[in-house]
Formats: sequence, C-alpha cells, structure tokens
Amino acid sequence: MTRCVLGQNQYGKAENRVVKITRDGDTHHIKDLNVSVALSGDMEEVHRSGSNANVLPTDTTKNTVYAFAKRFGIDSAEDFGIRLARHFVDDTAPIHRARIRIEEYAWDRIDTPDGTPATGHSFVRRGQEIRRAQITYDGHSVQVLSGLKDLTVLNSTGSEFWGFLRDEYTTLEEDRDRILATTVSTWWRHTWDGTGAPAPDWDRSYRRVRTHALRAFAETYSYSLQQTLFAMGVRVLESCDGIDEIRFSMPNQHHFRSDLSPFGLTNDAADGAVYHAADRPYGLIEATVLRDGADQLIPADLTNL
Amino acid sequence: MTRCVLGQNQYGKAENRVVKITRDGDTHHIKDLNVSVALSGDMEEVHRSGSNANVLPTDTTKNTVYAFAKRFGIDSAEDFGIRLARHFVDDTAPIHRARIRIEEYAWDRIDTPDGTPATGHSFVRRGQEIRRAQITYDGHSVQVLSGLKDLTVLNSTGSEFWGFLRDEYTTLEEDRDRILATTVSTWWRHTWDGTGAPAPDWDRSYRRVRTHALRAFAETYSYSLQQTLFAMGVRVLESCDGIDEIRFSMPNQHHFRSDLSPFGLTNDAADGAVYHAADRPYGLIEATVLRDGADQLIPADLTNL
Amino acid sequence: MTRCVLGQNQYGKAENRVVKITRDGDTHHIKDLNVSVALSGDMEEVHRSGSNANVLPTDTTKNTVYAFAKRFGIDSAEDFGIRLARHFVDDTAPIHRARIRIEEYAWDRIDTPDGTPATGHSFVRRGQEIRRAQITYDGHSVQVLSGLKDLTVLNSTGSEFWGFLRDEYTTLEEDRDRILATTVSTWWRHTWDGTGAPAPDWDRSYRRVRTHALRAFAETYSYSLQQTLFAMGVRVLESCDGIDEIRFSMPNQHHFRSDLSPFGLTNDAADGAVYHAADRPYGLIEATVLRDGADQLIPADLTNL
Amino acid sequence: MTRCVLGQNQYGKAENRVVKITRDGDTHHIKDLNVSVALSGDMEEVHRSGSNANVLPTDTTKNTVYAFAKRFGIDSAEDFGIRLARHFVDDTAPIHRARIRIEEYAWDRIDTPDGTPATGHSFVRRGQEIRRAQITYDGHSVQVLSGLKDLTVLNSTGSEFWGFLRDEYTTLEEDRDRILATTVSTWWRHTWDGTGAPAPDWDRSYRRVRTHALRAFAETYSYSLQQTLFAMGVRVLESCDGIDEIRFSMPNQHHFRSDLSPFGLTNDAADGAVYHAADRPYGLIEATVLRDGADQLIPADLTNL
Repeated sequence: MTRCVLGQNQYGKAENRVVKITRDGDTHHIKDLNVSVALSGDMEEVHRSGSNANVLPTDTTKNTVYAFAKRFGIDSAEDFGIRLARHFVDDTAPIHRARIRIEEYAWDRIDTPDGTPATGHSFVRRGQEIRRAQITYDGHSVQVLSGLKDLTVLNSTGSEFWGFLRDEYTTLEEDRDRILATTVSTWWRHTWDGTGAPAPDWDRSYRRVRTHALRAFAETYSYSLQQTLFAMGVRVLESCDGIDEIRFSMPNQHHFRSDLSPFGLTNDAADGAVYHAADRPYGLIEATVLRDGADQLIPADLTNL
Repeated sequence: MTRCVLGQNQYGKAENRVVKITRDGDTHHIKDLNVSVALSGDMEEVHRSGSNANVLPTDTTKNTVYAFAKRFGIDSAEDFGIRLARHFVDDTAPIHRARIRIEEYAWDRIDTPDGTPATGHSFVRRGQEIRRAQITYDGHSVQVLSGLKDLTVLNSTGSEFWGFLRDEYTTLEEDRDRILATTVSTWWRHTWDGTGAPAPDWDRSYRRVRTHALRAFAETYSYSLQQTLFAMGVRVLESCDGIDEIRFSMPNQHHFRSDLSPFGLTNDAADGAVYHAADRPYGLIEATVLRDGADQLIPADLTNL
Repeated sequence: MTRCVLGQNQYGKAENRVVKITRDGDTHHIKDLNVSVALSGDMEEVHRSGSNANVLPTDTTKNTVYAFAKRFGIDSAEDFGIRLARHFVDDTAPIHRARIRIEEYAWDRIDTPDGTPATGHSFVRRGQEIRRAQITYDGHSVQVLSGLKDLTVLNSTGSEFWGFLRDEYTTLEEDRDRILATTVSTWWRHTWDGTGAPAPDWDRSYRRVRTHALRAFAETYSYSLQQTLFAMGVRVLESCDGIDEIRFSMPNQHHFRSDLSPFGLTNDAADGAVYHAADRPYGLIEATVLRDGADQLIPADLTNL
Repeated sequence: MTRCVLGQNQYGKAENRVVKITRDGDTHHIKDLNVSVALSGDMEEVHRSGSNANVLPTDTTKNTVYAFAKRFGIDSAEDFGIRLARHFVDDTAPIHRARIRIEEYAWDRIDTPDGTPATGHSFVRRGQEIRRAQITYDGHSVQVLSGLKDLTVLNSTGSEFWGFLRDEYTTLEEDRDRILATTVSTWWRHTWDGTGAPAPDWDRSYRRVRTHALRAFAETYSYSLQQTLFAMGVRVLESCDGIDEIRFSMPNQHHFRSDLSPFGLTNDAADGAVYHAADRPYGLIEATVLRDGADQLIPADLTNL
C-alpha cells in the first residue's frame, strides 16, 4: 500500500482588504492594503483526520488583521506585516512560521488648480505601481522582502539589439534604435532580520529603491534588456544600504515599427515612428542581482509570470 | 416561411494599439492609443450572400490607423478620430457611417530627484484614469464624445446616508459619517458638430472637465452618491462651454467599518477607523446631466457595467 | 447662469452573487446567479438636494434578492428577474421602472468513470458560456431579453475571405481556406410581454437558441463572418417561436497561418497547418437580425465591446 | 565599491499562442497551446556588457515553437515541451537549461441534438479547467510536472468545520453543514526522467489524475479543506503509478448562508439554503503530498496566489 507523507503546507486568509484612516484635525491620512496570511506548524493532524484542534481559523487571521490595524495603526506595510507575523507565531503554540504578503495602493490628494489640496479628506488613487512586502517569521528571525509590480516604463530610444546568436530558426533583423518598454516586477531583500539593530525606515528605503531603479532604467544605454535589468539591480545595491539581493521579472513589451512602405511612407525611428504595441508573445527576462557574498534567498518562482 | 430583416450592424477592426513617438531634438513625445473602428453602410449583401464587394477589410481599417498616425501625427484622440471617421465615410462609397472609439494611456517623464527629466526619452506610465473619445460621422456632421474611466476617488468623511425609504427588506442602519468611494466612468458630449466653427482645444477641454469633476467630488458635502454625481455634472456644464451633456456611471465602492467590539475596540469614524473595502455587490449609480434644452444623446448603455 | 436638467438615471445594487441549493433527498440542485438591480422613478430630489426620501437603499435591493431566492426559489433567471422587477415597481411607490440583469453560471455533476454521479451533492463548474437575462418592467409590461456570452467556437475550415473592396491602404491577401473563430456574445428578445399568455419555458427556449446558433455556425460555409452571423440569427428566428429579434457581437479572433518558409517548411491549410492565435487587434462584427415587421429594441451598445 | 554578482537568471519568449490543426480526411483535430520558453546558461556577459553573442533571440525561440509544431506535430503538451527543451539545450552551446511551460485549452466538437458531430471541423471551447505542463531539462535528465488550474468544484453538503483553536480574535461559529467550494490549482511530478524507460502516456495519465482528484473531492466527508486536499493527494498517488509528488493550492471560496431572519425566513442548510458567494477575502490552503521517500521538488511558490 502506498504510504503518503505531508510536505510543505500553509494556510490562512488571503486578500484582506483593509483601509485605515487617520485623522489629524481636518487632515486625513489613508493606508490601503491587501493583506494575505499564510501559517505553518503542527498541521499533520488536520490533513489526516480533519481535526482542527491546532487550526486557528482563517477567519480569526482576518479578524486579527483588522483589529491590529485599529490597535496599532499602520506605519508601513513592512511594520504591519512584522507585527502580524510575530503575533501569529509567538502567541499561537501550534504555529511555527508565518508569512504575510501585503500589497499597498497609493493615493494622492485631490488638488485645486494652484496645487493646494481641495480638502483634507479627498483622495484620488495614484494608479501607478503597486507596492508590496513579504514578511516571514519562524520564531527566531524575520525576513523582509519589499517590492513593487505594475510599474510600466518605456525608453523611446537609447536601445539596440544586434550581434545575437543565430541558428536555423533565426529570422530576426538587427535593430539599432528601438523602443524598450517593460512592466517592472521586483522583490528585494533587506539584511535586517529583526534582531539587534532597529528596523530600517521602510518608506524611505522604498522611495530610494524606486528612484534608483527608475533612473538606471532611463540612463542605461541598452544593448539588451538583460543589461538594463542588471544595471538596475547594481544601481539599487550600490545606492541602498541594507539590501543584499534584488530580483526582477521584466517582460519585453514589444513595440514593432509598422511597415508603412506599401503606402509610400517611410517610418524610421529617427524621424519619430509609429509602432504597434503587441500583447503576446513577449520576451520575459528574469534575474537576481546579489551583493557579493550574499545568499540567494528570493525564490525564482516568486517573480514568475 | 420566416422572413428576416437585417437591423443595425457595424464592423471594423477593434483595439488597434498604436504608439506614436515625436522627436523634438533629444526631447521625445509619446501618444499611446487603443483605436477601434466600426463602419456601417450598404452591407445587406455581405450578410445575405457573403459577397464582400462592399466590405473594406478590417485589416485595411487597421492599416489606415497606422498610416494616418504617421502621415498626420496625433494631436489628440479627438482630432485623430475625426480624421479617421471622415476618411472612411467620405472616401469609401458603401460606407455611410463611421464610429471611432479611442482609449488613451498617459505617460509622465521619469524624473531625477530634483524634478528634472532623467532623459528626454524616458517615460513611466501614469496609471491613473484612461482618457477616451468616441467620434461618429454620418457624412454630414460629427458627434464627439469625450470621456474617462478608471479614475478612483475617495472622501474619508463629508458623506452621510440616512432618511431613506424603508420597506420590509430594509435593515440598513443610517450613517452620519461614512467613506464615499467610487471609480468614475463618464462620457460628455461636445456641441461642436464639425461644421462652422473651428474645433475646440480638446486637451484643454479634457483638463477642465477632469479638474472640475474632481473638485466637485471633493467639495460636495454628500447625502447620497446621486447628489455628488449630479453636482459633478452641474459643475462641468457650468464651467465648460461647449459641452451640453454628461453621463456618469459610478459604483458605490463600499467601505464597511469593521465591527471590532468583540475585541474590546471602538472603531468610530471620528477617531480614524478601520474599514473593509468590499468587492461585490456594490451600489451602481448612473445618470445623465443636461444643459437645459439640450437633447439627450449619450446612450444609457454606454456607461453601463 | 446655467440651468441643468436631470436626464436618464438609475441606481441599484449590482452583482449580487446568490447561490440557491435545493435538496431532493440526497440529490441536490444548484442555481448560481449574479444579479444586478437598476431602478428608476421619482429621483429628482435625491440628485438635487440629497434627500433620500424616495430612495430604497441599494442594500435593501440586495436583501430582496436573497430573500426572494429563499421565499420563491429560482426556477430560471428569467422567472426570478421578472418577480424581482415586478416587486420593485409594484410595491414601491416612487419606483416606476426596474431593470434586472442576471448572469448564470452552469454546474455539472462530478461523475464516476462509468458516468453515474459520484454523489448527489458534488458539482464541477461547466465553464463554457455564461447565460444571461435582462428583464425590464415599467408597471405595465415586461420586456425579456435572454442571452449568452463567452461561448468560443471555431471552424478549422469551411471559411473563405476574398473579393473584398480595396483602397490604397489594402494589403490583405485573399484566403480560400481559413480558420473562423469567435466568441459569441448575444441577446435575443422574447415577444412575450408579461400580459396575456403564460410565460415561455425559459430553459427550453435557451437550449433551443443555443443549439440552433451553434449548428448554424458549424454548418454555414462562410465567405465572411457577417454571413455566418446573419445565418445564425435567421436560424434562431426560424426555429424558435416567440423570439422576434436577436443581436450578436462577434469578434473575429484571427488565427494567422505561420510563415514557416524560412525554415524550409510548407504550412498549407490543406495539410493541417500551424496558426498563431492573435490577441489584438481583432475584427468586430455586430448586427441585429429581426423577424419581418418586428421593432428593433435591443440597444446597439448592449453587445458592444 | 559594491561588487555585484549575477544570480539565477533566465529568459525566453513567453505566451506563444500556437494552434495546430491535423486533418484526417474531413475529420479535423485541434491542439491549442500557450507555450512559454525560459533559457539559462552562459549569460554573464549579456547582463554586464550587453553583448548578445550567447543570446539566442527570444524571437528565435518563438519561431522554433511554431516550426516544431509543424515539423513534429503536437501529441501532448508534455511531448512537445520535452522536444523543445532538449532542442534548446542540446543544440545551442551557451544554453544549459531550458524550462518550457505550457497551458492547453480543450475543445469539444459541436454536436447535433442526437449527439453526432455537426461537422468534422467545428469546435466549441470546453471552458473548464486549463491543463498545463512544465518541462525542465539540464542536459542530463528531464523533470516533467503536469497540472491543471481553474477547475471549480463544490460540495453542497458533507462538509463541517468545528473544534478549531480559539484565541481572543476568534468569533467564528462552528458549522455542521456548510458548502465546500474551491478552484483547484495543482501540479504533480512524474518519476520518469527522460532516461531509460519510455515516456508515460501523458493524456491517459492526465485523465487518471483528474478523475481521481475529482472523485476524492466528491467522496471525502470533510471536516476541513486541508483534509479534503490531503485525501485528493493520497488518492492520486495511490491510483497513479509514476507520480511521486503533488501540490495543491486551493482557495476556500466561502459561501455564507444569508441571514434572512429579519424577514421572518429560516434559511437552514437542511432545507436547501440561500448563500452569498463571497469574493475576498478567502481562505487559501496549500500543501504538498509525497510518496514516502520521495524528494519534495515542486516549488512552494509555483502554486501560490
């Protein structure tokens, strides 16, 4: 008879949409998060017999998210996730590991034409990238990944692609002036592990990584998307202390120059061209960049499409 | 035997994703559109026998979009759509009516920390609302609708809901301080019809409508989403000459205050509360606002979800 | 000063996801609906002053959906929608018109290998098309539209496209053997108006329309998608009494034969070819087919993409 | 100065939508795949300097997918992926590892009312689960994962949840008769590694896993979704030789019994109840089940939501 073993397992309530308003007189502040909880521990019995004696209900993990938002506020996704992860592991005997994943949606204030806020309580969702964080705690140390997704960028020149390997299925023409466009998905890992030193300023850290990654994208004269990706990773590691590893997943969102020659039109990049923005297929470039000596800990499949 | 009649019909190529770069020395400009073409005319025969003698292929309408982008550039979605619509009707005998729908995606420049552009050719997609336009031309006059969708806004106070009609299925409690959040979807109609006066400045018009709609949302102390919607429409009509009609479709994106009393926590709006942002169901409020004496021409189903 | 007028308006709770189980001993039955309510009536005041005295809360319309599902069961989407529409208009003085839109998700039983049900209570979602209905009631008569969407079909031969109109932007080559693929979106209108005769058997009617539309798609040797669409409409009207009008929106989901000649491979349709299934752009064909003498009442924009 | 190291990296063309028709007289067969290629190897240089000398263009990997579909046909997703993976690694010196991911969309024949096919070339997309495969080849052996996603199942009874762990944030009531619904996402790993024995019959294997997983879902009287998940894994391993490991990711798609007591209605499960199908948040249960002694090789993050 087949004997079966339980391998890696986790459970919890996913996608708790929590919004916290903080009032400072007539000026309000908003935090808008999507929080997912995944717990592991002594779970052999629930899988084999269905006994829930060790199972804190996912409904309880949801309640905890909302109650903690009120009790402690939300300084940043990272702070909030750390607090939740520590609570579940430290305060629940059968739980040995907690992983909290958070997406954060940014809001701007609705402005009047002269740039002052229309009111202290009116917001418009920014709509650009989604910030995210993953906190994992095993009862001893904390691992914090920060990241973002859905940040779409484009260089309308400064990108070439040539000199590539050819085989019998290669028909691609070389291109000395192409559009380079991608939607950045990335995670980076902080060295801080929850012991010893105080935690980083997560918001400041996020802004620095975002700024340096964007600038490296803009400023790199590119011969391949891999080169641009690596330059972005290097720039982040060089500019941001306390980060040891960063992984990018970047689709090459092809913009094909239209062939308008049947209509007697030239369509050269140098003159300002017309492009067809394609959906599928797309190139997909993924890589981890590490500080020398650092361990590679961000799972490759975490950024996969 | 049943005799069948052909009713309203139209065809064309939908969702042509056209990107036009314009170079002004090292400073580039980008227009990023999604263009859909729908043509009507003498089409009885193709439906009955399959004869395509009157059918300009949808592939040709696609080619025309890309060729026109190169030949004439893209000043605005409205200008571009008008040119396309006129071409299809005026230059193709069997085509009597053209409707062009366009979505436009906005891009910002990638900035350095001091706010200057990193390069003249590096962009980040804005990600907020999608601008749109619909141009219809019947050989005589042009109807231009402009619009936007996916603009998510929220007031964290200044909204109440009470004094409503009650029947045997009413259990809702009154609320004197709630979050009001919606994702605005709207179309407005210009009086300009392509004859006589020169066309409006479409970009300036768009910015005005957007600004006034946003400010009316922010500044209206609200007793119902209907009231806010109507105030937005009135503000647009009062502030923007040349617009006679505007229709909104606005979901009421419920933010429910969490009941934290089982955990010994109060969660009053006045103190800064925690909310659950719900997905479905949601209220859905739709209405047209008209300048007195104007005809109602925007189809109700155009903004429907 | 600008005087503004309130035009067409409606409100209600959208996307109420209601599941009703009926137990017949150990054999269960499931109805899985997504119900959207839109009400109109004496609503001037709520738009102008925010007074909700005439506003039955959308929360109440939600409660009514769930309570009616229990009180009366759900025979079919149409029956359920008719009952709801009549209730809102007949029992709520300020409400003069109700429109109920319903999507229905179909479930099959989980079978054992010999085809018998594994249990009486185990289901797998069918996943093919979504059935839908729209019921409108104005206090006098009922209009019932039935429909479906997301039904994807493909003929791997029996489709040609040639003899089309050419202009200076036409480059398309003629094709004597192409794939014809589309995702059918359709609404049809029943002559029954809620007065006089008993209501049709909605489930039987739905099966008939679906069967005849599918067979017409399969059996029509096609020279254009318009011809196929019209044949589908005619077949439905000829085969199904009590239906006067049907409207289709059918994207032409292009399957482009790959050019494999650079690799020394022929890729002719006659030998069984390889195709690239494209996303965007796509042709979009829309038309209404009417029984002779019938009014055209299905809004064109209802099936628009 | 910071020294940076290149970690795990891969690239290729993602989401190649390939459709292959095979003609057997008037009877046609269809294979409809979405193929993603990811290659790794000597890629240090392209990341550092942008030299593409070792980079087979992603465009070439796309061409290869289409050319192989014609040259060799598509017996199954697994066969096709194995052939592609071996080609990229064995025939391209700098490529040391290839991972092919494939989604497959199933089609049925359009039938006449008596169940015979309407034609030999007319198909309707099945629309239920998406089958998938992942093949990884490193020059020595092959790892084959098969899987499926988007298979939605529901038991309308035979599920309880009680006796769970309680803490101060627990408010959930016990339930002795609830709906259990989930959308199954799963990968399983074959022992076959491409050396020695001939490959399994992939289609037969797929049908067996699917059947046994579905039946275990239906036949397990459940005290927790974990128990059901584990039973499904055990059933698959017991019933299907040549599979050593299976991982499931199963959201608990909550169906909440409506509280209709304010309307004087009871709504007990035993009588056939009305439920609200909720969107978010949802429980998320994930686990690997292994044959005793087998290595755990399916990445945990591969099935994550």
